[in-house]
Amino acid sequence: MKIGTIGNNKFLKELNETYLLELIRTNKQISKADLAQLTGLSPTACGIIVTNLLDKGYIREAGVGVSTGGRRPVLYELTPQSYFSIGVDIDVDYIRFILMDITGQVEYRDIIPSKSDYSVLATIELVEEKIRQIIQKNNIKEERLLGVGISIPGMIDNISHEVVFAPNLGWERVNLENMLAGIGSFPIYVDNEAICSAICENWIGCCINQKDFVCINMKSGIGSSIFAGGNLYRGCCGSAGEIGHIMVDANGPKCGCGNYGCLETLASSKAMIEKAQKQIKQGLIADITDIESITIDDIISSTNAGNEATRVILVEASGYLGLAVANIINTINPSKIVLGKELNKFPEDILEHLKNIAFAKALKYPASRVEIVTSELGEDTSALGAAIIPLQKLFGYQV
Amino acid sequence: MKIGTIGNNKFLKELNETYLLELIRTNKQISKADLAQLTGLSPTACGIIVTNLLDKGYIREAGVGVSTGGRRPVLYELTPQSYFSIGVDIDVDYIRFILMDITGQVEYRDIIPSKSDYSVLATIELVEEKIRQIIQKNNIKEERLLGVGISIPGMIDNISHEVVFAPNLGWERVNLENMLAGIGSFPIYVDNEAICSAICENWIGCCINQKDFVCINMKSGIGSSIFAGGNLYRGCCGSAGEIGHIMVDANGPKCGCGNYGCLETLASSKAMIEKAQKQIKQGLIADITDIESITIDDIISSTNAGNEATRVILVEASGYLGLAVANIINTINPSKIVLGKELNKFPEDILEHLKNIAFAKALKYPASRVEIVTSELGEDTSALGAAIIPLQKLFGYQV
Repeated sequence: MKIGTIGNNKFLKELNETYLLELIRTNKQISKADLAQLTGLSPTACGIIVTNLLDKGYIREAGVGVSTGGRRPVLYELTPQSYFSIGVDIDVDYIRFILMDITGQVEYRDIIPSKSDYSVLATIELVEEKIRQIIQKNNIKEERLLGVGISIPGMIDNISHEVVFAPNLGWERVNLENMLAGIGSFPIYVDNEAICSAICENWIGCCINQKDFVCINMKSGIGSSIFAGGNLYRGCCGSAGEIGHIMVDANGPKCGCGNYGCLETLASSKAMIEKAQKQIKQGLIADITDIESITIDDIISSTNAGNEATRVILVEASGYLGLAVANIINTINPSKIVLGKELNKFPEDILEHLKNIAFAKALKYPASRVEIVTSELGEDTSALGAAIIPLQKLFGYQV
Repeated sequence: MKIGTIGNNKFLKELNETYLLELIRTNKQISKADLAQLTGLSPTACGIIVTNLLDKGYIREAGVGVSTGGRRPVLYELTPQSYFSIGVDIDVDYIRFILMDITGQVEYRDIIPSKSDYSVLATIELVEEKIRQIIQKNNIKEERLLGVGISIPGMIDNISHEVVFAPNLGWERVNLENMLAGIGSFPIYVDNEAICSAICENWIGCCINQKDFVCINMKSGIGSSIFAGGNLYRGCCGSAGEIGHIMVDANGPKCGCGNYGCLETLASSKAMIEKAQKQIKQGLIADITDIESITIDDIISSTNAGNEATRVILVEASGYLGLAVANIINTINPSKIVLGKELNKFPEDILEHLKNIAFAKALKYPASRVEIVTSELGEDTSALGAAIIPLQKLFGYQV
């Protein structure tokens, strides 16, 4: 959520470094004269702010622009590799790390294995050690690190920022911000994984100019996040978008939440893996032999290789997902729905099936206005979004 | 949606008549000195605006307040019955009319029967005639009528304001604003019935200070409206909140929308009436004899009189509604859910059943933060909300 709309006269009198910085970012390269014109500030006032930003290293001169009569104006742009942020995506079987610079450029990425049975402390130690390594390896001065964003597959209290409940990690009431405070003087931000993906899609992905969109991620669980009217919508206590426990089949299997037939019990990768494991035992899936360490990738490869049994597993799951997407189209009326993480890897025809179910089950009017796409940023969206949070703070967004 | 937040310094320099008027409304009675203090405007500037508002008749003197040292200050308040607005709620079997004054006081209300098989033109003629009558009967000068708001049980295009589709009225692509333009020089505003209810609850009902709430109305259909982060949320093309066609039973009956097991086919008053009619034919409901003109009121009366067959109908419907409410709790994470229209009349124990299902099926965390209530304003909420729209325009809201 932006503090104010740049270009809105109401805010021009309060325009400060933050707004000028945001204008320089969104315009890529811009002159003092254009900044003055866009903001309504005097050239002198703009000049003072630009000098401050140059002194701090956020921006640099970027050559000269086109003359509009007089001398060709000096252009300014964000200084690549001047300031940095780190994004961490903690999930059941991996932890992803992204080092991003002020321009949004990824400077470093890494992924380390994790285990769902790791204790909270063990996971935090892993994360802490890796962050220190990234800082050291990339020679980042602490005062140039804008912060660390952490993506968690769970509900985050929007006041205390505590992880209220992350069932697939087995976490409950974990205050990561406090637990990681000792690592350095930079701030720590914790957010939900689907929300991080939405921040990413809205900042550098396929939803830059979308006001009303929904990101749906499938991983161990299924979560979503909602942009409503141009702003991230969190709900009254931060858990909006928790669609994993919407009932899609009253006669479905029992879910960890206590109910029956939740979307996650029928369409998450965990549910699909469990179904495949049963079928392997029954000798129905011959091309997967390692029953213990089977992943969703194995199911997808097997399907791509022509195995009908695994194909049926994907088709069934995508049918349930289609129902959930139809619900979202009716209830939220978004212009775009971005399918992310494991969904990114689904075979094209299975995704078509999902879309067909969604469009058939949704009301025609909102269905005719929505585009359903997969993320172009692969499985990194939550780590990228987590890294973007400290940047957004700098540029005056209220994330 | 408010243009700006009163009391937010950013806006004080732009404070104009609209904002002062809104301050006078929200403070009920206020002095020039207090207006000056709240706005940061000079007492002289406030004085000029107050004189303008007095001249136009919006406000009047309301006696004197408490002295804070010097002379006791004159207080100003909105002038009752100075300006008016009309709200119209067009539904399948009735059209409701509300005449409201600038203070939100209802001056006149009426309800006339309608029929779902009336043509669009016949309905509009009825509405036009009645509006003329109300204006005449209440001696309203046209320049004192701020506008007419019209509530429709259907989807409204949020750009053209056309009624895209109102299935229970049998309307498609109806431009009411144009069709009613000839009636007078005042503006006509058309909006969805659940959205009108939300506007009403947020302005004069039980959601005055709620930022994230949902209104669910049951009538011939089932609709809802969403306030997200303090603003009405309409979605990308105005149809957000259309929960009537969420699938709640894959094996349910066929719906008018082409799908099976939509909430409306199982829990709307129409669905309940059809079920009761079947049972009357089978001799299962002895105390209702007029099978043709049976209403939801008959089913409720019969249940209150101890009839088990009608009770089961209500229990089953409320169970499906409970499922839909659980979906909303998970997806929207509201602090309040207001059940309106026919739901208002449901027996207490049936509503308890609905709430129990909703709380049991929703995730614990968002369920622990939401209050589910019935509207205190009975079945008038959409007509009241429609009447409030022209007032909100006057007070600077972007409805």
